[in-house]
Amino acid sequence: MAKEKKVSQITDMDADFAQWFTDVVVKAELIDYSGIKGFYVLRPYAYAIWENIQQTLDRRFKELGHENVSMPVLIPESLLQKEKDHVEGFAPEVAWVTHGGEEELAERMCVRPTSETLFCDHWSHVLQSWRDLPMKYNQWCSVLRWEKTTRPFLRGREFMWQEGHTLHATAEEAQEETQQMLNVYADFCENTLAMPVIRGRKTDKEKFAGAEATYTVECMMHDHKALQGGTSHYFGDGFARAFGIQFTDKDNVLKYPHQTSWGMSTRIIGGIIMTHGDNNGLVLPPKVAPIQAVIIPIAMHKEGVVDRAKELEAKLKAAGIRVKCDVSDQSPGWKFAEYEMKGVPLRIELGPRDIEAGQCVAVSRATGEKRIVPLEGIEARVPELLDTVHKELYEKALKNLNDNTRAVTSMEEAKKVISEQGGFIKMMWCGDLECEMRMKDEVGVSSRCMPFAQERLGDTCPVCGKPAKAMVVWGVAY
Amino acid sequence: MAKEKKVSQITDMDADFAQWFTDVVVKAELIDYSGIKGFYVLRPYAYAIWENIQQTLDRRFKELGHENVSMPVLIPESLLQKEKDHVEGFAPEVAWVTHGGEEELAERMCVRPTSETLFCDHWSHVLQSWRDLPMKYNQWCSVLRWEKTTRPFLRGREFMWQEGHTLHATAEEAQEETQQMLNVYADFCENTLAMPVIRGRKTDKEKFAGAEATYTVECMMHDHKALQGGTSHYFGDGFARAFGIQFTDKDNVLKYPHQTSWGMSTRIIGGIIMTHGDNNGLVLPPKVAPIQAVIIPIAMHKEGVVDRAKELEAKLKAAGIRVKCDVSDQSPGWKFAEYEMKGVPLRIELGPRDIEAGQCVAVSRATGEKRIVPLEGIEARVPELLDTVHKELYEKALKNLNDNTRAVTSMEEAKKVISEQGGFIKMMWCGDLECEMRMKDEVGVSSRCMPFAQERLGDTCPVCGKPAKAMVVWGVAY
Repeated sequence: MAKEKKVSQITDMDADFAQWFTDVVVKAELIDYSGIKGFYVLRPYAYAIWENIQQTLDRRFKELGHENVSMPVLIPESLLQKEKDHVEGFAPEVAWVTHGGEEELAERMCVRPTSETLFCDHWSHVLQSWRDLPMKYNQWCSVLRWEKTTRPFLRGREFMWQEGHTLHATAEEAQEETQQMLNVYADFCENTLAMPVIRGRKTDKEKFAGAEATYTVECMMHDHKALQGGTSHYFGDGFARAFGIQFTDKDNVLKYPHQTSWGMSTRIIGGIIMTHGDNNGLVLPPKVAPIQAVIIPIAMHKEGVVDRAKELEAKLKAAGIRVKCDVSDQSPGWKFAEYEMKGVPLRIELGPRDIEAGQCVAVSRATGEKRIVPLEGIEARVPELLDTVHKELYEKALKNLNDNTRAVTSMEEAKKVISEQGGFIKMMWCGDLECEMRMKDEVGVSSRCMPFAQERLGDTCPVCGKPAKAMVVWGVAY
Repeated sequence: MAKEKKVSQITDMDADFAQWFTDVVVKAELIDYSGIKGFYVLRPYAYAIWENIQQTLDRRFKELGHENVSMPVLIPESLLQKEKDHVEGFAPEVAWVTHGGEEELAERMCVRPTSETLFCDHWSHVLQSWRDLPMKYNQWCSVLRWEKTTRPFLRGREFMWQEGHTLHATAEEAQEETQQMLNVYADFCENTLAMPVIRGRKTDKEKFAGAEATYTVECMMHDHKALQGGTSHYFGDGFARAFGIQFTDKDNVLKYPHQTSWGMSTRIIGGIIMTHGDNNGLVLPPKVAPIQAVIIPIAMHKEGVVDRAKELEAKLKAAGIRVKCDVSDQSPGWKFAEYEMKGVPLRIELGPRDIEAGQCVAVSRATGEKRIVPLEGIEARVPELLDTVHKELYEKALKNLNDNTRAVTSMEEAKKVISEQGGFIKMMWCGDLECEMRMKDEVGVSSRCMPFAQERLGDTCPVCGKPAKAMVVWGVAY
């Protein structure tokens, strides 16, 4: 029996968003389920997106003086236990290696869930004087967390990420680094991925295990739920003390350095899908799209069409555009659907009449708008059109965020807004864990962050009536 | 007590090569011992070498139509067992994950020692028709093998590598791919790493577990031992049958595809060290050196010296050279020793008299030769000098290989040459495993490969006297 690939329908996103998401990751050939719960194959198309993300971030990290390193994939249990809060946060969800070859290990080791302990152990060996500081390291790798509920990109038992780890002579310098890297993430989300963000600080309940402060960029998905785009942590000297990391300062005194870490993961690809996707499939922001423009020749049997299409491909490629000309024997209609499913930002149609008229038709994946574009000078026009698609995507996502973020001043209002409309709510908060828990129990939302852009919506915490300390953005999170 | 970094002496390489190697990897700041046997921290300098290797290979792979993917890090035991020879080769040396979080796993999983089984499982899900072939994939990752004896770069329980895996409609096409990728490795070793290679086929005893044929590029180290630079395997359709991978061919018949895999690892960095290094430390081939040229200002207190040195740095950087100007407060002598230890291919000295004369002094790390170079037009001269260093390194390594590879025609001669002079021997072989084992037991060498460049040294196998089938290169291997 012959097996042939078909472009297939996907679930309506507004009818069943979760099923729509699953359909997209499979039909756009991003993911294959590996047969092991929570582990996924990143297929070439997904990995190419990740490579584009990596390249952009890596270049930025290096411009800011960071260096890449590689730490071991395994952490001995005794090492993981050195920092009390950290081990409490991670021990329940790690995978344990107990045997090497035929023999049982004297001490079991976990596959890294994150690498703070490994970086600290390393630094305790090599840090000597103030001359060695700052140490600004980054690692690209995968980590394991034994999650109960799993979904491609959003919550895997394995996921890929980068984890930056830095060591500084002073607290001020480390705090500055924490903010700087948060800004790198915010800028990356907005200007590379066309995803607007809310920058802010996590509450103590939501901060990273072992951190003094965690900062976040929060994004809103199509279904108005929140996704954390990237986080940046300030550790103070807590880890340095736990691991005995010291340096001789200029004044010849031994001191503890201050530390940060920050990370962004393949989860952000889930964010891209859920921010920009539609009922025709994936929609990719042009700056990370593996194929930025696809050329589809119309009436390929007509003389000259394939040749002209390939000339156009060569011209755009030479201009640095990631372009593909599809001359396979599928119909134009099949190809339209295929590249819509794959989220290619710009479709360029080229038929005999276009060639005669010295033009082509460019279609934005963001809006479906068709534009007649002269072939003369098209290599300068396509980058502009890609910028336009980026802006269209950003504006649409920003409108979604603004339209679905509502200020509330009472618990009744909070409950009503969340149950009837969903989205984010902005509300004042006294700073107590108890009120944060009540928001979860009674309203069904968690604190996303205390935005840097604070507003004074009132003087008291609507949960308990005590004086308010900060405005918090609340929502349901992935 | 103040701690300060000092440039330190290393062991004489001809007195104790193993200790020299250990000294170099530590003193050149390539490696930190992680505290877990066989696991190493790749420090920024080593990782930067690996990134340069990655970039060059990755570009080449992509030019040849390969795509990167990511497979899970864990393999369920049942999946590892699907191909009989493969599991026999790898099961004894894998690390087993038995617990996830608090619970024991229903089936234990190993941390991947190599990913053939994962690629096959994936292909069995997604391959449909001849239109999908070839599938030419590559993965950059780390793998685990629970080795008993471990050394940095050379034999780690964890090492980084790339593993290419491809699937083809016909045996011929897969065999062509196997050869093509071997040639990529050979070209990379010679033209990027300045390491001459012997290309050839492995004997059945030495081939990869599950392969029909394994091809290799073999390199000779300073101590005349062999190091395998990269390997390329042809699998036939054995894995496809074991995993039930089939496709509908153009004739509408279901067929089994043919498969290859090929890999190069961070082991090659060990090869670089042991091929080019000397008693002053590391010597890096210019094409992968993180710093290709270091500028050392002489008499920095003299007016204009630091400014001129930084101008020179900017000029060379703009020309695409990886250059560093060291204006730290260490002495020039300290800096000379430091960058010699780190193997920087070219040292550029710039002092007040040089500036006055409009010149600088360029010193080759390969030969120590000093050349006066006019500052005018230096940005074109430095790339030429780097090419010269590459050639100097290659010629020296080639001479080492040629001088220490000897043709022998009897067992007596083989024993005498190996015990008195070491190195490689070329000898005819009948093709029997028994004779190969006797070479190991009686001469102390293993078969490195049957070189593509065959010579007819005699008609019979010197071990058993039976008719000879091929000339084999024998040696002691890392």
